[in-house]
Amino acid sequence: MLIVMHRQARPDDIKKVIELIEEHGWVAKSIPGGERTAIGVLKNPEPVDPAIFLDLPGVRDAIPVSKPYKLVSREMHPEDTLIGLGDDEVVIGGGKPVLMAGPCAVESEKQALDIAREVKRAGAKIFRGGAFKPRSSPYSFQGLGKKGLEILAKVREETGLFIITEATDHEVCDMVEEYTDIIQLGTRNMQNYRLLRRAGQAKKPVLLKRGMWATVDEFLMAAEYIMSEGNDQVILCERGIRTFTRHSRNTLDLNAIPYIQRESHLPIVVDPSHAAGRRHQVIPLAKAAAAMDVDGLIVEVHNDPQKALSDGPQSLYPEQFLQLVSSLRDMNIDI
Amino acid sequence: MLIVMHRQARPDDIKKVIELIEEHGWVAKSIPGGERTAIGVLKNPEPVDPAIFLDLPGVRDAIPVSKPYKLVSREMHPEDTLIGLGDDEVVIGGGKPVLMAGPCAVESEKQALDIAREVKRAGAKIFRGGAFKPRSSPYSFQGLGKKGLEILAKVREETGLFIITEATDHEVCDMVEEYTDIIQLGTRNMQNYRLLRRAGQAKKPVLLKRGMWATVDEFLMAAEYIMSEGNDQVILCERGIRTFTRHSRNTLDLNAIPYIQRESHLPIVVDPSHAAGRRHQVIPLAKAAAAMDVDGLIVEVHNDPQKALSDGPQSLYPEQFLQLVSSLRDMNIDI
Amino acid sequence: MLIVMHRQARPDDIKKVIELIEEHGWVAKSIPGGERTAIGVLKNPEPVDPAIFLDLPGVRDAIPVSKPYKLVSREMHPEDTLIGLGDDEVVIGGGKPVLMAGPCAVESEKQALDIAREVKRAGAKIFRGGAFKPRSSPYSFQGLGKKGLEILAKVREETGLFIITEATDHEVCDMVEEYTDIIQLGTRNMQNYRLLRRAGQAKKPVLLKRGMWATVDEFLMAAEYIMSEGNDQVILCERGIRTFTRHSRNTLDLNAIPYIQRESHLPIVVDPSHAAGRRHQVIPLAKAAAAMDVDGLIVEVHNDPQKALSDGPQSLYPEQFLQLVSSLRDMNIDI
Amino acid sequence: MLIVMHRQARPDDIKKVIELIEEHGWVAKSIPGGERTAIGVLKNPEPVDPAIFLDLPGVRDAIPVSKPYKLVSREMHPEDTLIGLGDDEVVIGGGKPVLMAGPCAVESEKQALDIAREVKRAGAKIFRGGAFKPRSSPYSFQGLGKKGLEILAKVREETGLFIITEATDHEVCDMVEEYTDIIQLGTRNMQNYRLLRRAGQAKKPVLLKRGMWATVDEFLMAAEYIMSEGNDQVILCERGIRTFTRHSRNTLDLNAIPYIQRESHLPIVVDPSHAAGRRHQVIPLAKAAAAMDVDGLIVEVHNDPQKALSDGPQSLYPEQFLQLVSSLRDMNIDI
Repeated sequence: MLIVMHRQARPDDIKKVIELIEEHGWVAKSIPGGERTAIGVLKNPEPVDPAIFLDLPGVRDAIPVSKPYKLVSREMHPEDTLIGLGDDEVVIGGGKPVLMAGPCAVESEKQALDIAREVKRAGAKIFRGGAFKPRSSPYSFQGLGKKGLEILAKVREETGLFIITEATDHEVCDMVEEYTDIIQLGTRNMQNYRLLRRAGQAKKPVLLKRGMWATVDEFLMAAEYIMSEGNDQVILCERGIRTFTRHSRNTLDLNAIPYIQRESHLPIVVDPSHAAGRRHQVIPLAKAAAAMDVDGLIVEVHNDPQKALSDGPQSLYPEQFLQLVSSLRDMNIDI
Repeated sequence: MLIVMHRQARPDDIKKVIELIEEHGWVAKSIPGGERTAIGVLKNPEPVDPAIFLDLPGVRDAIPVSKPYKLVSREMHPEDTLIGLGDDEVVIGGGKPVLMAGPCAVESEKQALDIAREVKRAGAKIFRGGAFKPRSSPYSFQGLGKKGLEILAKVREETGLFIITEATDHEVCDMVEEYTDIIQLGTRNMQNYRLLRRAGQAKKPVLLKRGMWATVDEFLMAAEYIMSEGNDQVILCERGIRTFTRHSRNTLDLNAIPYIQRESHLPIVVDPSHAAGRRHQVIPLAKAAAAMDVDGLIVEVHNDPQKALSDGPQSLYPEQFLQLVSSLRDMNIDI
Repeated sequence: MLIVMHRQARPDDIKKVIELIEEHGWVAKSIPGGERTAIGVLKNPEPVDPAIFLDLPGVRDAIPVSKPYKLVSREMHPEDTLIGLGDDEVVIGGGKPVLMAGPCAVESEKQALDIAREVKRAGAKIFRGGAFKPRSSPYSFQGLGKKGLEILAKVREETGLFIITEATDHEVCDMVEEYTDIIQLGTRNMQNYRLLRRAGQAKKPVLLKRGMWATVDEFLMAAEYIMSEGNDQVILCERGIRTFTRHSRNTLDLNAIPYIQRESHLPIVVDPSHAAGRRHQVIPLAKAAAAMDVDGLIVEVHNDPQKALSDGPQSLYPEQFLQLVSSLRDMNIDI
Repeated sequence: MLIVMHRQARPDDIKKVIELIEEHGWVAKSIPGGERTAIGVLKNPEPVDPAIFLDLPGVRDAIPVSKPYKLVSREMHPEDTLIGLGDDEVVIGGGKPVLMAGPCAVESEKQALDIAREVKRAGAKIFRGGAFKPRSSPYSFQGLGKKGLEILAKVREETGLFIITEATDHEVCDMVEEYTDIIQLGTRNMQNYRLLRRAGQAKKPVLLKRGMWATVDEFLMAAEYIMSEGNDQVILCERGIRTFTRHSRNTLDLNAIPYIQRESHLPIVVDPSHAAGRRHQVIPLAKAAAAMDVDGLIVEVHNDPQKALSDGPQSLYPEQFLQLVSSLRDMNIDI
């Protein structure tokens, strides 16, 4: 924290700021400049809220200097985190995109198996599909629940694909952890702290989706919650943010990718399907993300999207997914 | 839903759209215009996702027409909902602002009682204070929990103020419901569907804060979740949205107030403290909201904000709260 | 500017940063902390772009400390700027709201005079009306041009109201300056630097609307442009920013009002009409702004809004404007 | 336009809406549904403002149906527009990315020629560089003006590269048109209608940057302005939008690319440099855009970015530009 004093601040104002810093047990360091004085706050174990100082007489501004996160930070842990599934047949991290694909929701064993076989043939390594669905309308399909998890287990058994599925609250997380290979936390739950803590106690990797309203700092702090409970197997997922635009459901924030790659050691994957909300944008966005050395793509694929019980309109047809993989190979990306 | 066809759409394209509508069990109504045809979708029991149609040949656009909510809608329920506390000593709804005030977090019995007495003297009818705190850092103070609820009960007993406090997840909600007069749901939980359902089963009124990322339609859909479980005692709370600005924590969306007043019969209150995040904006924003005939203001007040364990920098001093009430009375607002 | 070094930065990295600062002719001040070193940049005559430092080895972050504006800053000029019209019959500044009202566009002498008489009777002191209209469609009505300015002069002569009208580019500004009492610069021109410079050379006060995309710092920098050319008669105008919401054209940013009042000595007025874009939000927003001690309100009023050639749907009827003024008086605001 | 009536609307309300439509000379088409009536507006030559209807009794909503643009629309002109430079040595359009590169501002003949030779060697076909610079601070370098244009002409003569440079207002446009191969209009001028009209009268192609606040519809309407004056050589340029994020200057909106490719026949190019504002994001974003079959990339390159007079921190070093081109070739993109 750096506290910037007014040009006209009196010595007494500066003294009071220093006293307040010291009352908190921190160390104050005065930096007299040409026109004004600034005061650094040092030795604070955690980030300080700038607003503490903003109302004191003579204070012009208070500017945070350190980042609020530690465990997720590349500064503390320079090497890439690699997350292996099974016997490390699949490794997430290191810049080679792992494909995760499947329907928004698991609807039946036949549907799940049919789609799983298609996406496996195309090159996917991980099958995605929701058993518990967070839905913005109370009147919409809410997922098959435990039955859906059993279908996912069957898919793994039959196809050899690994499984990722969402835990929508901390109770459900017990059941999800039992069945899945990766626990997914959804965008609306990025700051559901009880769920973050529960996921932090899990023995399985966690894929954390960025809240559509969240800055990257807040996103990394949510990952910090999980890691602070002992689980260091966290995969970050960019899935679009809310902006003023109207031509897509959200805006995929690809500026965040190189920033996160520099700032954190955790793997980062991209979900083009939810960012788009419309099928025609999914393949271009998936290719764009793949061109940035992300660690994975998570894509919705459905064999009958017009009749899908959830998010059909953004799901690729299996042949489109095949075409996406083929385009990625044309770009010399190793799938 | 209105499906707008391309100028060059062929009769066969139009036929396919109509067939798809009818396959869903809805009714299609063709509207030939000068340059192009549009097709209305009728008799759909729930809102239809426009993206279902966007990829069909000859389709130019698909435009939602009906609103997704019903129970919260003024169209279905033209009279204002009034929510009485106790023996209707306090009634929320109808355009007279009820004042809710208190610290961000309950820190001790003495702190809570001292502040409660101050805000009561000034004119507040309801005491706010968090026992369970959602915090963006895992390293921050998380609230006193059950002990905090007991302190709140003591405050009610000693001062006669009604109590509002937050339930941060569906399990905690059991305990909160037992102690509080109004259950508060926080901005980060606006789409925590499990919690919304639990609150919908409560026998106490629920104050639902708007997600900082949520459109008003999504906000009303969250209230619909609560009402769909049988609880029609819902109070809406505008508390600021996330925008590109940097001079405040969030941007209070006062445009939403007249829109919500027209669109829904539920009471609407405003939280200027979280919208501001900085003390110097709180009183002006509170006065602005009060000028719009809102049904309440919920304001953070702390007697020692420099040492508050949570959100101190946006809390008013008790004398500032008194000054706010006095300004409201100068505006001829009946407190 | 404060440059924050990595924990692992080597002495050589720090040396290079200091050298770069000194190469620019600035002064570097090293601040060793517990975990890392920070380096202050002093004596830079203008704000420094943080990105200059972000790519240097060992640099973690670079944080701007000073504000980029000077002339508009209250720090440099603590007293409120007061802008008098005529023989100071009307003074803008000091917290008493001056009412400016009239149609979006001047359409005819009769229309302008009729509306002017109505708004004068209600309490307006300044008549607004566009002669040159910036329109987002090339096919829309573009204003009466010089003929419109002549009508405005006639309105002043007949009613005694002062006049405000928009200059849409630097050439048009010559003509507008001749006829008007206040030159208005529109939201889309907030960073039209040629126009800002021209307005800075004018002998008339300038009302500068905030760009719908602009931070307050950028807004103040645009005002700085005008003042840097010698015109210190600048009135700031908040008129709504672009956000993700859909229930209004823009979101009125009332958080900005107390921030600007603290940060700058210039008067600040509010335009609720353009922020709303819909009539039913205008009166509530106008009342909200007035409750914040703004220096003026600029409101669209039309006597036949259904047939207005521009922005009719957000214009108040004259009787609604009267009702607004009456509400303001009920709030003890002196009109 | 579709006007949606309330469930409780009376026959008289419907009649009034129909009358208002007919008064405007349009055609009303009533669509009775199960629960409510909707009324279509047909034969309106231009888009209708929904707000005209929103305040009428019995009206629930008014929803725009047609797009406001015509000339830019692919619906009206299905084939891609191709823009040839010189003797069609370079063609923009059709999905093969043309590289435009150079410094933010032309600083001297030597600087311009040195950089031009480097970017040509790497594969660029067009040299970019500003002679007139729009700067947010009145105290910053504003460009070399005419001298800069002469240097650009020299660059073309010496290297054979085509030239793109910005016209910052309609007067300057005369001079720019004389010297340049492509006239660039900047993000802040996207709705400078006088400049748009002037560019529409030019005999040279125009590259129009999207306003950082603009929806794609508004962006296309700005292009419509240019085309409506007779110039059909318009190149669209996505350069990032303003969002709540803080890790980059703007957020590159790549969702817009497939949408624009579907909606308009005009070529679309991407500017990763301004979207990023920080060097480390430029190459990843450029690769991402290239993976989407855009028609060009416009990239800032400087041989001494630490001393650049404008936007140095986002400029690539020449060797980084070479590395970008090499990465694009690795992706099998034909440069």
